[in-house]
Amino acid sequence: MCTPARALTARVIKATFGRSLPARSPKPWPRTFGTAAARLQSASPDGARSDEGRVADKSNALKAHNAPFPQRSHHCGSLSAKDAGSSVTLTGWLLPGRKVGKGFYFYPLKDPHGTVQLVVPATVGAETLELMRNIPVESTVLVEGLVSERPQNQKRPQPGGDIEVTISSCTLLNPAEQPLPFVPSDEHNLPAEEFRLRHRYLDLRRSILSGNLQKRSRVAHLIRTTLHDHGFVEVETPVLLKSTPEGAREFLVPTRTSASTPSVESSIGANPREACREPHFYALPQSPQQPKQLLIASGAVDRYYQIAKCFRDEDGRKDRQPEFTQVDMEMAWVSWGDRAANAGDNAWRIGGKEVREIIERLIRKIWLTVEGIELPSSFTVMTYEEAMGRFGSDKPDTRFGLELQLVTDRLSVPVKDAFANEDQVAEALVVRSTDTQYKSATKSKQLYEAAMRDGADMVRVLSDGTVKVASSVGSSGTFGTPHSITDALQLQPGDTAWLAKRRRAPEGGSTVLGRLRLLLSTEAQAAGQLVLPAAPHFLWVTEFPLFTRADPDKEFLANGRWSSSHHPFTAPMWEDIEKLYDGRLAEVRGQHYDLVLNGMEIGGGSVRVHDAEMQEHIFTEILQLHEQEKTSFNHLLHALRCGAPPHGGIALGFDRLMAILCKTESIRDVIAFPKTGAGTDLLFKSPAPVAHGVLQQYNIRPGSSS
Amino acid sequence: MCTPARALTARVIKATFGRSLPARSPKPWPRTFGTAAARLQSASPDGARSDEGRVADKSNALKAHNAPFPQRSHHCGSLSAKDAGSSVTLTGWLLPGRKVGKGFYFYPLKDPHGTVQLVVPATVGAETLELMRNIPVESTVLVEGLVSERPQNQKRPQPGGDIEVTISSCTLLNPAEQPLPFVPSDEHNLPAEEFRLRHRYLDLRRSILSGNLQKRSRVAHLIRTTLHDHGFVEVETPVLLKSTPEGAREFLVPTRTSASTPSVESSIGANPREACREPHFYALPQSPQQPKQLLIASGAVDRYYQIAKCFRDEDGRKDRQPEFTQVDMEMAWVSWGDRAANAGDNAWRIGGKEVREIIERLIRKIWLTVEGIELPSSFTVMTYEEAMGRFGSDKPDTRFGLELQLVTDRLSVPVKDAFANEDQVAEALVVRSTDTQYKSATKSKQLYEAAMRDGADMVRVLSDGTVKVASSVGSSGTFGTPHSITDALQLQPGDTAWLAKRRRAPEGGSTVLGRLRLLLSTEAQAAGQLVLPAAPHFLWVTEFPLFTRADPDKEFLANGRWSSSHHPFTAPMWEDIEKLYDGRLAEVRGQHYDLVLNGMEIGGGSVRVHDAEMQEHIFTEILQLHEQEKTSFNHLLHALRCGAPPHGGIALGFDRLMAILCKTESIRDVIAFPKTGAGTDLLFKSPAPVAHGVLQQYNIRPGSSS
Repeated sequence: MCTPARALTARVIKATFGRSLPARSPKPWPRTFGTAAARLQSASPDGARSDEGRVADKSNALKAHNAPFPQRSHHCGSLSAKDAGSSVTLTGWLLPGRKVGKGFYFYPLKDPHGTVQLVVPATVGAETLELMRNIPVESTVLVEGLVSERPQNQKRPQPGGDIEVTISSCTLLNPAEQPLPFVPSDEHNLPAEEFRLRHRYLDLRRSILSGNLQKRSRVAHLIRTTLHDHGFVEVETPVLLKSTPEGAREFLVPTRTSASTPSVESSIGANPREACREPHFYALPQSPQQPKQLLIASGAVDRYYQIAKCFRDEDGRKDRQPEFTQVDMEMAWVSWGDRAANAGDNAWRIGGKEVREIIERLIRKIWLTVEGIELPSSFTVMTYEEAMGRFGSDKPDTRFGLELQLVTDRLSVPVKDAFANEDQVAEALVVRSTDTQYKSATKSKQLYEAAMRDGADMVRVLSDGTVKVASSVGSSGTFGTPHSITDALQLQPGDTAWLAKRRRAPEGGSTVLGRLRLLLSTEAQAAGQLVLPAAPHFLWVTEFPLFTRADPDKEFLANGRWSSSHHPFTAPMWEDIEKLYDGRLAEVRGQHYDLVLNGMEIGGGSVRVHDAEMQEHIFTEILQLHEQEKTSFNHLLHALRCGAPPHGGIALGFDRLMAILCKTESIRDVIAFPKTGAGTDLLFKSPAPVAHGVLQQYNIRPGSSS
Repeated sequence: MCTPARALTARVIKATFGRSLPARSPKPWPRTFGTAAARLQSASPDGARSDEGRVADKSNALKAHNAPFPQRSHHCGSLSAKDAGSSVTLTGWLLPGRKVGKGFYFYPLKDPHGTVQLVVPATVGAETLELMRNIPVESTVLVEGLVSERPQNQKRPQPGGDIEVTISSCTLLNPAEQPLPFVPSDEHNLPAEEFRLRHRYLDLRRSILSGNLQKRSRVAHLIRTTLHDHGFVEVETPVLLKSTPEGAREFLVPTRTSASTPSVESSIGANPREACREPHFYALPQSPQQPKQLLIASGAVDRYYQIAKCFRDEDGRKDRQPEFTQVDMEMAWVSWGDRAANAGDNAWRIGGKEVREIIERLIRKIWLTVEGIELPSSFTVMTYEEAMGRFGSDKPDTRFGLELQLVTDRLSVPVKDAFANEDQVAEALVVRSTDTQYKSATKSKQLYEAAMRDGADMVRVLSDGTVKVASSVGSSGTFGTPHSITDALQLQPGDTAWLAKRRRAPEGGSTVLGRLRLLLSTEAQAAGQLVLPAAPHFLWVTEFPLFTRADPDKEFLANGRWSSSHHPFTAPMWEDIEKLYDGRLAEVRGQHYDLVLNGMEIGGGSVRVHDAEMQEHIFTEILQLHEQEKTSFNHLLHALRCGAPPHGGIALGFDRLMAILCKTESIRDVIAFPKTGAGTDLLFKSPAPVAHGVLQQYNIRPGSSS
């Protein structure tokens, strides 16, 4: 198989370079690499076209160019009318050409910076014309030519659209196979995403993905530069960490070194030979939470950041990746700042003022630079309780109204009393007949079905005053007689309302009506009746409950009745410390803050516990950790005891942030080599089985333990 | 256990904030948090000192401050004489104080930016004085005070050494336990490294490590900014990749998702139920080589960089880490540049000119910024053959002479002929009596033993002209009679020489005399007779042999007689392509380049094969890969076939680079949370065994496969 190629290559090199590049000559590289004939030979078209008799080789494949070539002089996107008259050397991908006159062709040449129009004039000679005709689309070429301004009526608005380059020579650097699995520049004939993921190296050639990656790099650099200018120190934390008690979603990494050498722990107390047999594992971090707290506790730096890879072993979520990227930060000495600014309705009543400030500065800078949008000098702050009450969500989309109401007190007495007994309240969502943008949405079948499924009652007043109630619990519903409800909500003909009940103290991420509110907006937008404002709505949500009644589905350190709403290192609001120790846990609010954009959580963080005694109380008395679980936090507790400063931090989801800035729904569009929702990498074909002999080196084998 | 703490904390909060911070008052935070008495109470000293009767609590522990405190106004290191007269709020770690007069104390206060001298005057009051006396060293405090210029004779040269801060109040933020495992500021009494690694959060508080981390961040930022300014796009490549044929040193990552869902491969052709049982793995990359080539092949970006985490599962090397950091780069369209510059002795005769340029620019910028050293505008280039001939090393330390000579032709005829028959040559290293800086080194016992062990002959001419020969093969040695040798090397009384033989075409990283040369230098430096120049010596080594005779110890894709010297993607020099196809593999030189600094390899890279046909020839005909090994490169081959541009890249070892810039021998000193040479993390206690029930979720279990 290699014989003809070998012989051919040798001949081609001789033909192309034998004379023009004697080994010792210090002359400049020949600009055209021999004659067009030689180039044609080196880039032999298919056999059918070799009838001119000049091509000795019978191979019908075009060959890659492996010999020297000169440096390009410009990017394809960087030329403009001011370059007219210049000789240029360009490299790029050749897009489909078209004949525009007698032996006169146009070819667009593309690189990641843009596209330039090549003109191949008849005067270039028959050989080059033939070469150009034979080069497959998406091949890489090097051309030399002269820039000229386009005729006024042929100018295009994009960069480089005012010029064209009349080529004098063309060298095929690498031919693309024909046919390609798909042609990336043919935007209208793209195959399904799964197929494109298998050929990601071709898909990334599309300008939109290429542009996303370039934008991601620009934003990352903006973030780093801003943080650097504000005294943040970039520190790399370990990727090979220890598995933690909340390890349910962790990736483990077996290591062969520990299989032959006793490890830290196994060398203490255990029979060394036994210890040798036990496989040992690192774990990949779900976030650098513990390392960053230890770093700040050390005092080595007082402002840390890292654009950090994090890992989570869970599938089935459409837009999750097993590896994802966080803009991770932590600051020592975070404070309450000026108390005057912290009063009133829109108040930041917790610590972490410095975190809030740097994040707002960062986000404002990104939006100004990338989007050209000037954001307000400080973002709205809302407590969790207010967010749940008004929007039924802990990450409310405030770009539209449709606020919820708590209406328990307006309901009829028996209903009201029954709710009070159950410690429940009633929330209502009313669409008035005057809210025309939601008019067709209220009639949507999806909305109706969601309401019934989720346990909301729906009340509609027809134009004749008739009241229709739909409820999953029966025709009469949960909230009283139809007329008591219309009275309570002051419903008029044409109005529609939904009612649902929830616990008095809000819990979790959303309420029934919070979800219906979003669905109403989606339906109204789909119907073309609601158009959301273009300006982004940023919002801080604070004062979350520090603890949540343990949910059997949540495996996160939930041995007792309570688990941490976010993580066990979040500090309580100082006003609630007494309640923390008194056991009034439902009332303890945490110094946690979420950053919400248009209803999406794009970041979250907290002031941490720096008091070892308090941290131990939370571990032992509240979360009721097992001894082994507590042991894994010993280094953190000891670090706090060594004079750790008060500190707090935040992490922004960088993939999601970039997806928003790139205006795409899928974070896969802003990741160079993403995995599918199921965690498979269709390009690299991973994960994959491994030879059992390899596993043996780690002292593991397939199969369940007996 | 928690009852007293609970009660205490509640009381302390009331005492400190009950009155001064009513919940709705929009006043500024109180600057002193109540009276000194309240502060003393919140930071209760031990019981013995509560005799003043003001402290109700009997607890003898100092408490952490969990309530609000104001923002610091300055860093400890940022104050100078121009701030004299300013009121400041400072936070930091309290170092040991000393009494300097009647009730008059000095305390250094330290943060990552520097140290400031606090003056506690008698006028501050008895309570604060007592608090200060009781605060354990390394506790964190917040102080308020007034800056004043120090008396001229007390000024110190370090930042802030010209001022002191006379405090008016002090709040203990977090007490350090007593005694600490060690006191980081007590540089002269540090315990062994292993102990400090266990308490890394204390060790990092040492100024030297803190300074290293800050310098690492500055250099990383300098690198990013320079690359960004030169059009490089930062792209994150996957950490969860596929295991590769050279996987011998790879970390595997089992995944539970693939255990329940059929994977990419297993879903094709295999019995789905069987496929479900087989455990599936990702692998961590040893470098982003394949992703970065695919990225450049795609054309999404034409200049890529990443400061990338890489992973290698091998222990036993003292200064290796299982995870390490590379400055990783790849560029499309790398060329040969101007041929005129590529001629002569010091010539860069390969492609990758653009890589060379950006690296030289980057290194020059780093050395200028960090070290204040202006490096030459271009670095010396040396071929592998020259480096091996003159220095016996492929990473020569050119800061000192002692060049080797090839002396085969000068030896007596039978010796010369015997060597020629074996395709061997003789290398010699001569220290003349006039080379006084090596005088005592030549007599070193270590050097003698190394020579005998390594098979070199040693020839010494005594002052009376007597010739002494030492050889491990017997008294007469390998290189002829003593006098034929002294004639050949023109040795004079007082001269010493070593001779050794090696293959005519140099192989590997060093020769016998190359190693002896380094040892001579080390011994001469240890003896204080040789002082190496302070200026760094940068050097490019190029034109390495592309293939190496397969070494059974090297598992890297070595099925045939040949393996790749670096990796199988390195392009041959274009002059040697004919030899590549003809099978004259020993003569094929690669377009590989190593960057060497003072005898250390700090980076390496190459121009890659972009010709799919050539790459396939290398895989199949030269390396003789098995079918399965070849399959794992299918995506790369196909990417080349889709019109990949010519490309090349490089990776710099960032940990080593930083160790050099931080002037430390150990890369552990420039990593926040390093592992030991054996790969164990003494702080996080990893790797560690994992419960067998957890392993079950991955369909693996302990033990060897049967």
